[in-house]
Amino acid sequence: MSKAVQQDDGDRELGFDAPAEADATIVTSADPLRSLLELPQALVEECRVHLEDDGLKIRAVDPANVGLVSLSVPASSFETYAVAGSLTIGLPLDTLAKSVRFARKRQDDPVRVDVLPEGERARLRAAALRPNQRMRRVSEFYTIDPDSIREEPDVPDIELPNMAAPDVDALGDAIAGLERLNEHVWLSRDGETFIIGSQPIGERQLNEDNELVDTVAFPEAAWSENGADSARGSVFSMDYLSDAIGALDAAKADRVTLSFGDEFPTRIRGEWVEWGFTATFMVAPRIESESQ
Amino acid sequence: MSKAVQQDDGDRELGFDAPAEADATIVTSADPLRSLLELPQALVEECRVHLEDDGLKIRAVDPANVGLVSLSVPASSFETYAVAGSLTIGLPLDTLAKSVRFARKRQDDPVRVDVLPEGERARLRAAALRPNQRMRRVSEFYTIDPDSIREEPDVPDIELPNMAAPDVDALGDAIAGLERLNEHVWLSRDGETFIIGSQPIGERQLNEDNELVDTVAFPEAAWSENGADSARGSVFSMDYLSDAIGALDAAKADRVTLSFGDEFPTRIRGEWVEWGFTATFMVAPRIESESQ
Amino acid sequence: MSKAVQQDDGDRELGFDAPAEADATIVTSADPLRSLLELPQALVEECRVHLEDDGLKIRAVDPANVGLVSLSVPASSFETYAVAGSLTIGLPLDTLAKSVRFARKRQDDPVRVDVLPEGERARLRAAALRPNQRMRRVSEFYTIDPDSIREEPDVPDIELPNMAAPDVDALGDAIAGLERLNEHVWLSRDGETFIIGSQPIGERQLNEDNELVDTVAFPEAAWSENGADSARGSVFSMDYLSDAIGALDAAKADRVTLSFGDEFPTRIRGEWVEWGFTATFMVAPRIESESQ
Repeated sequence: MSKAVQQDDGDRELGFDAPAEADATIVTSADPLRSLLELPQALVEECRVHLEDDGLKIRAVDPANVGLVSLSVPASSFETYAVAGSLTIGLPLDTLAKSVRFARKRQDDPVRVDVLPEGERARLRAAALRPNQRMRRVSEFYTIDPDSIREEPDVPDIELPNMAAPDVDALGDAIAGLERLNEHVWLSRDGETFIIGSQPIGERQLNEDNELVDTVAFPEAAWSENGADSARGSVFSMDYLSDAIGALDAAKADRVTLSFGDEFPTRIRGEWVEWGFTATFMVAPRIESESQ
Repeated sequence: MSKAVQQDDGDRELGFDAPAEADATIVTSADPLRSLLELPQALVEECRVHLEDDGLKIRAVDPANVGLVSLSVPASSFETYAVAGSLTIGLPLDTLAKSVRFARKRQDDPVRVDVLPEGERARLRAAALRPNQRMRRVSEFYTIDPDSIREEPDVPDIELPNMAAPDVDALGDAIAGLERLNEHVWLSRDGETFIIGSQPIGERQLNEDNELVDTVAFPEAAWSENGADSARGSVFSMDYLSDAIGALDAAKADRVTLSFGDEFPTRIRGEWVEWGFTATFMVAPRIESESQ
Repeated sequence: MSKAVQQDDGDRELGFDAPAEADATIVTSADPLRSLLELPQALVEECRVHLEDDGLKIRAVDPANVGLVSLSVPASSFETYAVAGSLTIGLPLDTLAKSVRFARKRQDDPVRVDVLPEGERARLRAAALRPNQRMRRVSEFYTIDPDSIREEPDVPDIELPNMAAPDVDALGDAIAGLERLNEHVWLSRDGETFIIGSQPIGERQLNEDNELVDTVAFPEAAWSENGADSARGSVFSMDYLSDAIGALDAAKADRVTLSFGDEFPTRIRGEWVEWGFTATFMVAPRIESESQ
């Protein structure tokens, strides 16, 4: 029984108008679907989605090869999740996101997405109900040929011994605050204190060329997996780090863990307790100027 | 006795400073006047206003001749409505609207508008009180020579047998949602279900050139006046339909009724129970491409 | 004991990491510091700040020599205010303001600013705590050579007999409302009624060239110090007057007093009862057109 039926308060049921045949069907309340779409949207406009028996998986890398995201969503995240075998589609993220946004989070509006078979390119059919307004939106659009989408990245399995797990909202506020003044950002650790530093140009010290050093410290948020007292990470472009952290914050990750080391990429891993998602962003460092 | 007197909480009365002679005077709380101005503003920057004994009337057509609005406001909509005989003025809508917006809806601030006689062009004097802030704004400006304003349209009396009366807020949300993805819109009816469809280009079917079909359905909102099971209306520019519907929603119409037929304009009629306004928008269809 | 300690709800104290040596130190909750920075920001991007034993003083004039501000902040406005002797720094207002904005007004987040000695140019170190999020932001940046900043203006001691003290919020709303339609503004007084008038061009009368006269009247807000029944002030650029009044409103002055006379500048004086600030803006009149 669909959620829409339970919420319906009219005489007649406002339900989904199910298509005759579908290769895959997802029924869910708006919030988890809207949230998961925000994660790849931080880096790309389109991506491959692998629909398997036990859930869906997305991996994508931005066109400049600086940031990647790997997302795993178990079938149990959704009310209904049914796939005939396994299936890969090319998803125009913005089209689905704008359509699904018609379903309101606060009202817990239900959404149904069907993948419809059709020759070379599958179609997507996204339906959103607003039971209290007695209306249903249905958007139907072609998916993208998966082979025409940028190849999926390997997620490098690097050992990054410096760890930090600040509060997700605090981390989002910190990066948003630093972003107002600076274009570069670096991570470091001083004992249990996790530090996000940033400055206008790619240097860490205040000097004649670098007029500002700006840091946010989280006193009890860091630890080391190799016993070192302190460590510094690499310098990153603010845009990539703030897009990744902003997406994890907007998608309401329950826990975010950052791992970093000098001259290495940074790994930012989000976990969702109730929904069961896991998402990993990796951001490559900038090549620092020689004056460092 | 003016409303301002009743609301005044100071020792001295904050009232309107009435001009010595006026050809017409309207006193009202802010909300109905601000709302009625939004209706012609959806299509034009200036319009003729006919002030008669029993109320005021506005008809206007946009410069491209695609949308028209006809608005009737009875004298009883206002606290005071007095006209010496009958009078036509040319109204610069934006000037009056910005001045009147000084009166706040939530605080029920009172407004007084006087038409002052003066040679060839009348002047308008709009006064808005904010009793709790002890201040009064008075804007005085010339009206426009009515003969210099685009001629008023005839409102065609076409029989349009397909009818729909969705909830006003829901309709406003639907058109706002569709507008994010599409530039064309069409109306249709399937039994009692009213459907607003839209797509990027002017075609109704999903095909290689038309990558998206997007519909919002209102299951119990439609009926026919000629007994037909279903019907489709014409294709319209999204801008005109969303401007008309957006204005009716913003002006808080209590009921909106749409009438449509294939290859005909669409009529959108708004009614206000308490204020007594009626407003009719008509939007001309686009010429559809031959591939239809 | 710093405020941060009291607010801290964790096991460990989230405090300020005080620098070894500082020429001046201010500790305060966010609100007064954020508010005082808004006052010179209405006119300039950088200014000299004189730190004396008993408080700090700022005077600045905009690049066009039209508006000036003089601000006096007593030491008692802050929780801690310590200066070694007296000190003048050149302050990049926007950098400090953006950093300090990290401390939230509603949460009463504490801020600490240190002036650090360093050769020719001092550095500023601004620290903001968010105790409930367990994080601390520290921004360190160079001050500006005071000699390179536009010379400070003398504040002319002109007798301006026409006075008005409207409610601060009402005054802010009035100027914001007038600003939507007009680029010029003038002040006048009719007995106890204070009037802000404005129009599109620099004339006070409605005529063929000047299509709108727009006034806000405050009936019991004005008085004269020389016994005259009524008076009119000069015409000003809307931008300067609205920037000054907007800044006083945003900075939450408890009382604003305007003084004006014909062909003279206008003085706008703000007072803060609790914080003890006083700020005076002066705005020079426009040269009126001969048709007046």
